[in-house]
Amino acid sequence: MSGLKRHIGSGYPSRPVIALLTDFGYSDGYVGTMKGVIASIIPDALVIDITHGIQPQSITSAALILWGSYRYFPHGTIHCVVVDPTVGTERRPIAVRTSRYTFVGPDNGVLSWAFDEDGVELAVHITNRKFMLPFLSQTFHGRDVFAPVAAHIATGVELKELGEEVPNSSLKRLTKLSAKRRGKSLIAKVVHIDLFGNAITNLHIGQFERWLKNVAQGAWRARIGEVEFKMLSTAYADVPVGEPLIIFNSYGLLEVAVNCGNAAREINISVGDELVIEPLK
Amino acid sequence: MSGLKRHIGSGYPSRPVIALLTDFGYSDGYVGTMKGVIASIIPDALVIDITHGIQPQSITSAALILWGSYRYFPHGTIHCVVVDPTVGTERRPIAVRTSRYTFVGPDNGVLSWAFDEDGVELAVHITNRKFMLPFLSQTFHGRDVFAPVAAHIATGVELKELGEEVPNSSLKRLTKLSAKRRGKSLIAKVVHIDLFGNAITNLHIGQFERWLKNVAQGAWRARIGEVEFKMLSTAYADVPVGEPLIIFNSYGLLEVAVNCGNAAREINISVGDELVIEPLK
Amino acid sequence: MSGLKRHIGSGYPSRPVIALLTDFGYSDGYVGTMKGVIASIIPDALVIDITHGIQPQSITSAALILWGSYRYFPHGTIHCVVVDPTVGTERRPIAVRTSRYTFVGPDNGVLSWAFDEDGVELAVHITNRKFMLPFLSQTFHGRDVFAPVAAHIATGVELKELGEEVPNSSLKRLTKLSAKRRGKSLIAKVVHIDLFGNAITNLHIGQFERWLKNVAQGAWRARIGEVEFKMLSTAYADVPVGEPLIIFNSYGLLEVAVNCGNAAREINISVGDELVIEPLK
Repeated sequence: MSGLKRHIGSGYPSRPVIALLTDFGYSDGYVGTMKGVIASIIPDALVIDITHGIQPQSITSAALILWGSYRYFPHGTIHCVVVDPTVGTERRPIAVRTSRYTFVGPDNGVLSWAFDEDGVELAVHITNRKFMLPFLSQTFHGRDVFAPVAAHIATGVELKELGEEVPNSSLKRLTKLSAKRRGKSLIAKVVHIDLFGNAITNLHIGQFERWLKNVAQGAWRARIGEVEFKMLSTAYADVPVGEPLIIFNSYGLLEVAVNCGNAAREINISVGDELVIEPLK
Repeated sequence: MSGLKRHIGSGYPSRPVIALLTDFGYSDGYVGTMKGVIASIIPDALVIDITHGIQPQSITSAALILWGSYRYFPHGTIHCVVVDPTVGTERRPIAVRTSRYTFVGPDNGVLSWAFDEDGVELAVHITNRKFMLPFLSQTFHGRDVFAPVAAHIATGVELKELGEEVPNSSLKRLTKLSAKRRGKSLIAKVVHIDLFGNAITNLHIGQFERWLKNVAQGAWRARIGEVEFKMLSTAYADVPVGEPLIIFNSYGLLEVAVNCGNAAREINISVGDELVIEPLK
Repeated sequence: MSGLKRHIGSGYPSRPVIALLTDFGYSDGYVGTMKGVIASIIPDALVIDITHGIQPQSITSAALILWGSYRYFPHGTIHCVVVDPTVGTERRPIAVRTSRYTFVGPDNGVLSWAFDEDGVELAVHITNRKFMLPFLSQTFHGRDVFAPVAAHIATGVELKELGEEVPNSSLKRLTKLSAKRRGKSLIAKVVHIDLFGNAITNLHIGQFERWLKNVAQGAWRARIGEVEFKMLSTAYADVPVGEPLIIFNSYGLLEVAVNCGNAAREINISVGDELVIEPLK
C-alpha cells in the first residue's frame, strides 16, 4: 500500500475535522441527529461525510471504504465510524490514535485496516459516561456514544480521559486485505461492489507486482466466472463501451469493471467471488 | 416523552444552525439549490441535513423524524422542513418559535409533533416578500420561500417581520403520536419504516409503562400479523440472527425489528399496520 | 431564460464556496474523499453538495441540474462537476471563468449550458501537476485532479496558473437546451426525470411564449404518448390527486407531472420521449 501513501491529506487544519462513516442511510434522521449532537458540543468543527450508504451491517465494505479514504483527510481528522450490528451487547466502543489520525467506533474490526496501516499508538475502551449523552439507548450508540465522544475529542479531550487503555493486540481485526496464493496462482476475492457495479478485490498492485516477478515471461491470465482477461487496462475507456476489463483502481486494488456499464450486474459478480490469476506457462 | 427530553442539544452555539429536512431526495439539485440560497444570505451559518430521503410527500414520516431529531440540535437551531405536497395552493408557509427552537415549513402538520412537544411561543404566517426570492415559482417554495426565510431568521430577522401572527390553535396538527386503547389492549400503529426495515410504531415507552401498571402480573403478549412476542428485547442481538423482536428504540417508540435482518420485508409489515398488545389474563 | 436570472445568488461571501456535482453516489467513499482533499488544502471553504446522485455517466442530467442550480449560489462560487465517463483518456480537464462563477470539470459538455448562460470569460486546459495530487490514478480524477484544483482556486490561484488558455470555441458543448420546431408544432424532449417522477423537457417558458404569439386564439394541445393536455397548470394541486398535468417548473422548463404521483412511472415516460405541442387550428 506504500504507493498510495504519497498522496495523503497534508497539514493540521485551522479547525478540527470529524469524518463520519455509517450504514445509517439517507432516509432517516439518524445521521442528522449525530450532527446535531456534534454541533451542540463543537459547532466550529468541520464535519465531513465519508458515506452513510454502507449496505446495512456490512463491516467489510465500511472497513474498505475507510481504508481507501482516511489518508486523504487533513492530519488530525477524527474518523467516526458506526457500522455496529451488535450495538447494545458487550462489544467495546473504542478510540484509537494512530500516527496521524484518531479513529472512533465499535471494536468489531471495521477500523482495523485503516488503523493498522497508519500505525496504532494508543487504544482505549470508551467507558467514561461524562463524554456520552446522559441517557444511553440500546439501539443508537452513534448518537449517544460515538458522536459525542468524537466531538469531545475534537474539543481537545485526551483519549486517556475516555477510558482504560487496552492492548493493541486485543483489538478485533478483519482478515488482512490481500489476495491468497493457491499453487502458482493468486486468488483475489471480491470485497466490495461500488455504485457503478465495479467489483473491487483484495489484490493490491504491490502484491500483484511481487507475484509477477516470478511469472515466466510475465504471461498470465485472469478469470472470474466465465470471463477471462489477458491484460490490465489503464483506463475504463481502454476497451469498447460495454466490454469488461480489469484495472488497478484508485485504491490500488484490482477491480473488474465494464466500460460505461455495470460489471456486477452484467457479469453477475457478487461479494466473495474469486478472481483467479494464473501464469500462462 | 419526558424520558428523552434529558439528552437535549445544549447551549446556544457561536454561529447560527439551520437544519434541513425535505423529501427532495439525493438525485436532483433541489437541496443543493436551497443551500446555495442560504449561503448567498448567510455563508457562516452551519447547515445540517437531517435527511432529504423522506418518501415523497410522506408528511407523517417527516413529522416523526423531525420529532425524533430536533431536540438533539443546539438551542436556537432553525429547523427548515419542506415536505409540501400542496405547494402552490393556499396552504400557509409558517414560522413557529418554541421554547428552544424555530421551525419553518408549510402549515400541513409536518412540524406539529415537534413544536407541540417543545411548546409554541409564537407562530406567524409568512407573507413578507422581502424575505423571499424575487421570483416565486409555483413548484419549489423550498428554494423561493423556506430557504431564504430560514436564512434571514439566522441573520437575526424577527418572526414578526415575516408576516402576521396566527393563533396557535389555527395551526394544522397531525393526530397525536400515541397508541389507541381497544378494551384492555393497546393498539400501536406502524408510522414509519426505517432503512433497516425496522417498523416504528406510535407507542411510546411512557404510555406502555402506564398501561402495564394495570396488567395482571405484568403478563402480556404482542402480535403483528402472524408473529407473536412475549417479551421486550433490550438490544437487537438479544435474539438470534434472523429472529424478530420488539424493542423500545432510540426515539422511545416501540419498534419491530429482526436481528441483522429487515423486519418490514421479512415479516411483511407496512406503514399503517397494527401491533396489538393484550394482557394474558 | 432571462426571467429566472433575477433570483440569483447575491454578493461575494466572506469565505470561498465550492459546489460539488458528481455521479459518485452515496454508497461509496468517493465524494467524502474529495472533501477530505479539499479540507486538506482549504479547510475554511464552504463545500456544498449540489447532488451526487446523477445517474452514472448521465452527462445530460448533470448539465441540466448544474444549469438549474448554479445561479442560486453566491457569486464567486467554484462549481466542481465530475461526471466523467471517459476519465483516463485524452478528454481535457478544464476550468472556465464566467461573468460570476468558476466552473471546473471534464471538457465533455457537462458544464456547457451553465457557462454559456453566464458568459465565458476565460477557459484553460488544466495541466499543471502542481495543483493536482502527487499520484494520478486513471480512474478517479475527482480526487486527484478536480477536487485539488477547485480547492487551489478557492485559495486564490489564478486560472492561468493551471494551464494554457484554450479558445472558447474549442470547448465541447451539448446540443442547446431548447425545443425543436416541426411545422407549426413545438417538439419538446424529455431531458431528465427527477426523483418525484416529474419528466422535465427542454422547452423553456420563454420559447413557449414566443411560439404562442403566433398561435391562432392561443389555442393548443400537448401530447405525450397517449396523454393529452389542453392547459397549463400553475400548481401540482391544480388537478385532482393522481391526475397528470403540465407545468412550467422551477427551472422555467415544461414538465409533465402527476399530482402526488409519479408521472414517469404512471404515464410511462423515459428520457428522450417527445412531447408534441400543436396549434388547435
